[in-house]
Amino acid sequence: MNQVDLNCDLGESFGHYVIGNDEQVLPLISSANVACGFHAGDFSEMQRTVARAKKNDVAVGAHPGLPDLEGFGRREMDVTPSEVYDMVVYQIGALQAVAKAQDVKLNHVKPHGALYHMASDQEKYAKAVVQAVADVNTDLILFGMDGTFLTSVGEKAGLHVVYEAFADRTYQRDGSLTSRSHPNALITDTNQALKQVVQMLQEGTVTTAEGEKIKLRAETICVHGDGTAALAFAATIRSELQNCGIKIEAWHG
Amino acid sequence: MNQVDLNCDLGESFGHYVIGNDEQVLPLISSANVACGFHAGDFSEMQRTVARAKKNDVAVGAHPGLPDLEGFGRREMDVTPSEVYDMVVYQIGALQAVAKAQDVKLNHVKPHGALYHMASDQEKYAKAVVQAVADVNTDLILFGMDGTFLTSVGEKAGLHVVYEAFADRTYQRDGSLTSRSHPNALITDTNQALKQVVQMLQEGTVTTAEGEKIKLRAETICVHGDGTAALAFAATIRSELQNCGIKIEAWHG
Amino acid sequence: MNQVDLNCDLGESFGHYVIGNDEQVLPLISSANVACGFHAGDFSEMQRTVARAKKNDVAVGAHPGLPDLEGFGRREMDVTPSEVYDMVVYQIGALQAVAKAQDVKLNHVKPHGALYHMASDQEKYAKAVVQAVADVNTDLILFGMDGTFLTSVGEKAGLHVVYEAFADRTYQRDGSLTSRSHPNALITDTNQALKQVVQMLQEGTVTTAEGEKIKLRAETICVHGDGTAALAFAATIRSELQNCGIKIEAWHG
Amino acid sequence: MNQVDLNCDLGESFGHYVIGNDEQVLPLISSANVACGFHAGDFSEMQRTVARAKKNDVAVGAHPGLPDLEGFGRREMDVTPSEVYDMVVYQIGALQAVAKAQDVKLNHVKPHGALYHMASDQEKYAKAVVQAVADVNTDLILFGMDGTFLTSVGEKAGLHVVYEAFADRTYQRDGSLTSRSHPNALITDTNQALKQVVQMLQEGTVTTAEGEKIKLRAETICVHGDGTAALAFAATIRSELQNCGIKIEAWHG
Repeated sequence: MNQVDLNCDLGESFGHYVIGNDEQVLPLISSANVACGFHAGDFSEMQRTVARAKKNDVAVGAHPGLPDLEGFGRREMDVTPSEVYDMVVYQIGALQAVAKAQDVKLNHVKPHGALYHMASDQEKYAKAVVQAVADVNTDLILFGMDGTFLTSVGEKAGLHVVYEAFADRTYQRDGSLTSRSHPNALITDTNQALKQVVQMLQEGTVTTAEGEKIKLRAETICVHGDGTAALAFAATIRSELQNCGIKIEAWHG
Repeated sequence: MNQVDLNCDLGESFGHYVIGNDEQVLPLISSANVACGFHAGDFSEMQRTVARAKKNDVAVGAHPGLPDLEGFGRREMDVTPSEVYDMVVYQIGALQAVAKAQDVKLNHVKPHGALYHMASDQEKYAKAVVQAVADVNTDLILFGMDGTFLTSVGEKAGLHVVYEAFADRTYQRDGSLTSRSHPNALITDTNQALKQVVQMLQEGTVTTAEGEKIKLRAETICVHGDGTAALAFAATIRSELQNCGIKIEAWHG
Repeated sequence: MNQVDLNCDLGESFGHYVIGNDEQVLPLISSANVACGFHAGDFSEMQRTVARAKKNDVAVGAHPGLPDLEGFGRREMDVTPSEVYDMVVYQIGALQAVAKAQDVKLNHVKPHGALYHMASDQEKYAKAVVQAVADVNTDLILFGMDGTFLTSVGEKAGLHVVYEAFADRTYQRDGSLTSRSHPNALITDTNQALKQVVQMLQEGTVTTAEGEKIKLRAETICVHGDGTAALAFAATIRSELQNCGIKIEAWHG
Repeated sequence: MNQVDLNCDLGESFGHYVIGNDEQVLPLISSANVACGFHAGDFSEMQRTVARAKKNDVAVGAHPGLPDLEGFGRREMDVTPSEVYDMVVYQIGALQAVAKAQDVKLNHVKPHGALYHMASDQEKYAKAVVQAVADVNTDLILFGMDGTFLTSVGEKAGLHVVYEAFADRTYQRDGSLTSRSHPNALITDTNQALKQVVQMLQEGTVTTAEGEKIKLRAETICVHGDGTAALAFAATIRSELQNCGIKIEAWHG
């Protein structure tokens, strides 16, 4: 593949609380996952974030999360699939209106944190998220990992699925990420991370933590903007991929 | 005028908390102002309310409010016009997506409680609300009272404005409602209320609390569903207006 | 035992939202579990509830819950034991101050909903709740079910534990409640419920859903105030227990 | 006066959101005003903040605010005095329990932001705050500005009032702060700020923005910890006051 998308979670500030370096990371990425006011972000931050993304020609996507600002949407909650459907419809709609008000097209949806994991691992939640996306706007792209319910259910429903992969995480034999509790979960060496991404894009494979090569679709790479190291990492990934002749660009629905 | 709309605030329940008699009032009205999760309602209640309105062939509108569930959106807050713009865009968008998911067209917007008063009385807030409506969808109808900034600013912006009037409230010389702190603020006699509505519709006037006749546009009448008396009142208004040859029907954008 | 406490969850209204029949159930009970603003209740409702309990000479206890108003504290959340400790300290403290402002002594603590289940079933959460109670005030009584971590950890820590039992639920061989998903989970016949309570108090046993008699400590019976049937049930339990010579009275620390 | 207290608002972080440099400012101050989870802070942050204050031997006070996390408690809301009473009782109680759990005595109360202004300017709110403090614990010290309802009502109620003054703000003839909208509201020159504080402490006067000398009681000086400049300013104030033979120490109830 000679095109890849770089995505980053943005617009996570809330009221007087600031998180992230949105201004700095925007020139490095092609897709922004914008928090929708449930786990992070608020109605004004969403306007600012869409304006910044537009100015940087970065595609705008919804980043719906669980209704848990205190836990930043990272704590699983025992919600029903029906509640998940409802909260995803609501959040996509809210951001879609913000985007519309600025003449920006909403491009994709990527569930956040615990909701991302729940929809990856449990079919009932995957169905709820996919149905929500499809019911609001069938043109929306769905971001998810290869080998998860989220993407398989999304494909079956006819959504345009874009496969997300990680530069700085190691993989298991089944294509899942190594749990953060394991010592080798994170790739801290930039060269190794870069090598992993290039292999994903050029071969469609990843070498697992145990050294086995498995198939893995990778069309958008998740990068982070929180901290100097993360920004430097994203900048390196970006320029090295371009050096390899790979175009950094959002996918479009 | 031989057509009038009857509107009611609906979908105000939240989580396990129930307010209102939505099932009972829906057959009596033509437009539902649906709470959007800020002052009342939640993402699941919105789905239920839109489904009920659709089943009863009642037009669906957004009822955005201040972010104050504890105060039910009735306490004024010192928010900026920019924050008002942002919160109205967000709430309309959220409900619009819920409606879209059920193949329902969002028809109108009516600000709730303190936000309604703030946008009626202060031009800066009227402009914020009107701009929000226009930026999300210029086909949306704006509900507001004759003689307020909300409707005059809405007209100037080219929005389709529908004038709201009250059956059970007395009016002042300047077209404003008599404050609830005054003893004669409320019309408790059903016949008198009905007479006031018919006069509004047939003459385009209202007789003020002091007995003076003034001009007043009335195209949608606000009714309530909370309690047996309110439901009986709404039913009477509805049938008597029909007896007068006035059609009960929502306006469409 | 010729004394038993009847407890009920009270003060669950929030802002303009009303839940329960607190005025009606108060004359029937001896202990009120007062919601503390996390899963239900608010700072003003707490004042009203303490005032009502005082007037009815009913003991006041804290009913801390998960920070989830939308889910009424009934959805499990993946919180840490440390967060549970912190939220319980906070909520007990808030209610203790409300009680102090009305010259009322806070008497007990009963975790609510999902938090009650989590602290019953998982030792880490039981320890967090027990430590929170002990650190705020060692005189506070802890309510919990016989055979759970909540009460065994509470006993070990030296807290005064009062054992809660249910009149309208059937029990399993291990002393746990039959899951609500089972058809025979609820006891709907008032006589049977009453018989169960009397047996608990006089013999210290309960006959399980499968017909086996097991030991079960019961010192406080949970009743409900939501709905006419629940109120009638509570009134019957109360008067029949009194007819059996059992005194209805709160335990004191 | 040869003793003065330096106070700072602390514990304003919320969930994953960090505000302030609490660790850095604590060695410079003698009293911490701890946010109580309404306008800022949360139940876990309160535990951390009390622990840090204890370690630095800094007195702990409650900093209750309006229930408006999004607006950081800086937006006035049209709440009733009764609601203010209730929210202040609740917040003091919550922090008092956190302090108790760490064997720390709660020392003072300082209302935050809009609530501070409302209780300074309007007698009804001053009465509500003062009554709340008195009802929870008459030993608590009340912080407020000289010449406001907050302190005059507090004195009348018999509370121990400690007068707060500002190093970096200019004053008006009536003892009020120059509005931030005026160009000369802020004192940006450290020497001038220091001179103002020394004059307050040694003469009990302040020279207004118009050059007039008025009486002003100053027993605790408000400093800020947000940003390098604020920290440097606080450090300078501290050391210069000590150089003038003034002891930096909290007042005790």
